[in-house]
Amino acid sequence: MAGYISDAVVRRLPGYYRHLRELELEGVTQISSQGLGERMRLTASQIRQDINCFGGFGRQGYGYNVKELREHIGRILGLDSRHAMVIVGAGNIGRAIAQNDSFAKDGFVALALFDKDARKAGRQVGELTVRHIDELDGFLKSNDIEISVLAVPAHSAQTMAERLYALGQRAIWNFAPVDLKLPQDASVVNVHLDESLQILSYRMLQTARDNA
Amino acid sequence: MAGYISDAVVRRLPGYYRHLRELELEGVTQISSQGLGERMRLTASQIRQDINCFGGFGRQGYGYNVKELREHIGRILGLDSRHAMVIVGAGNIGRAIAQNDSFAKDGFVALALFDKDARKAGRQVGELTVRHIDELDGFLKSNDIEISVLAVPAHSAQTMAERLYALGQRAIWNFAPVDLKLPQDASVVNVHLDESLQILSYRMLQTARDNA
Repeated sequence: MAGYISDAVVRRLPGYYRHLRELELEGVTQISSQGLGERMRLTASQIRQDINCFGGFGRQGYGYNVKELREHIGRILGLDSRHAMVIVGAGNIGRAIAQNDSFAKDGFVALALFDKDARKAGRQVGELTVRHIDELDGFLKSNDIEISVLAVPAHSAQTMAERLYALGQRAIWNFAPVDLKLPQDASVVNVHLDESLQILSYRMLQTARDNA
Repeated sequence: MAGYISDAVVRRLPGYYRHLRELELEGVTQISSQGLGERMRLTASQIRQDINCFGGFGRQGYGYNVKELREHIGRILGLDSRHAMVIVGAGNIGRAIAQNDSFAKDGFVALALFDKDARKAGRQVGELTVRHIDELDGFLKSNDIEISVLAVPAHSAQTMAERLYALGQRAIWNFAPVDLKLPQDASVVNVHLDESLQILSYRMLQTARDNA
């Protein structure tokens, strides 16, 4: 499929996918690197470089076939197949993820939601019923789960990540404000909301200063 | 305070802040660039470069004073003062943000939560009562709000962002899967959860392939 793709390009892949899907919905079938660049606020040459990098698509002067390119990027991102998830932690974030239906359209389906608080067990959250964390090991052993969503407090995140790893989990979507330490064959992607808000605060102050 | 700080360094600032706060809690008062580097998995020279870049702190051979450096970075990030927020959209994400108490410890306090669904108005979400979106303009005019959290569906995000901008809002924390187009003096930081999950999926597949 595609060879080595740099981190910077990987981070842009979902944006390509989203814009191409929007174009498809708008009925656009063909788009030039310039047209796509304007839409994504990248230069045409950046677009050509990126797309070369992950596929070698399109013919000079003809632009890209929107559907083909979207499907190709979707395959690179694994969006052409279903990925089962568990969510660990039924706090605000865990519940929000459990109830969000936008992941399912990309094939990411949460099958279970766990919490260590026994009082939460049995509660309904969207289509899931909260299970006690003691059921985690059994559940992972008897179900084919690819992705673990880690939505536990900071102080228990590393321990829980190690437990998930020991149970064979290799992809962790981590919402805890912690840098997890796991073996190299584990993939971790962090959503550090606190840090994201701090960066917004920085930019806001900077812009205010520049315009003062 | 600090001059121009590159985007890459800005993205690392919250990580510095978090690690330094942890060190403070552990009772560590002084740390070398090497010690901090090991903790943050950066090289000592990277740490020295970064810290030079945002302050020119520390003396050769003495390491950094943990508390001073943490406070300095906190000021750069604006964490030394309070920032009032409104949340627009009382769906899963808006409610999760409203109920999350970790932002408040950094001074980010949500004062109101709005939704266009009149049936949601009056509901209690954490310490906030959902208000109808018609109250937004009046609320922003009579309160000193610095940050707007945009947690509305994709199709209404751009329109709502423009409304917020017209009402004087210059810092948007955007959870909608949309690239907002706003004038240059607006600061936008995106949390694109779908894209984050897609990147995890990519890395997981890549690692599986490399280890196959």
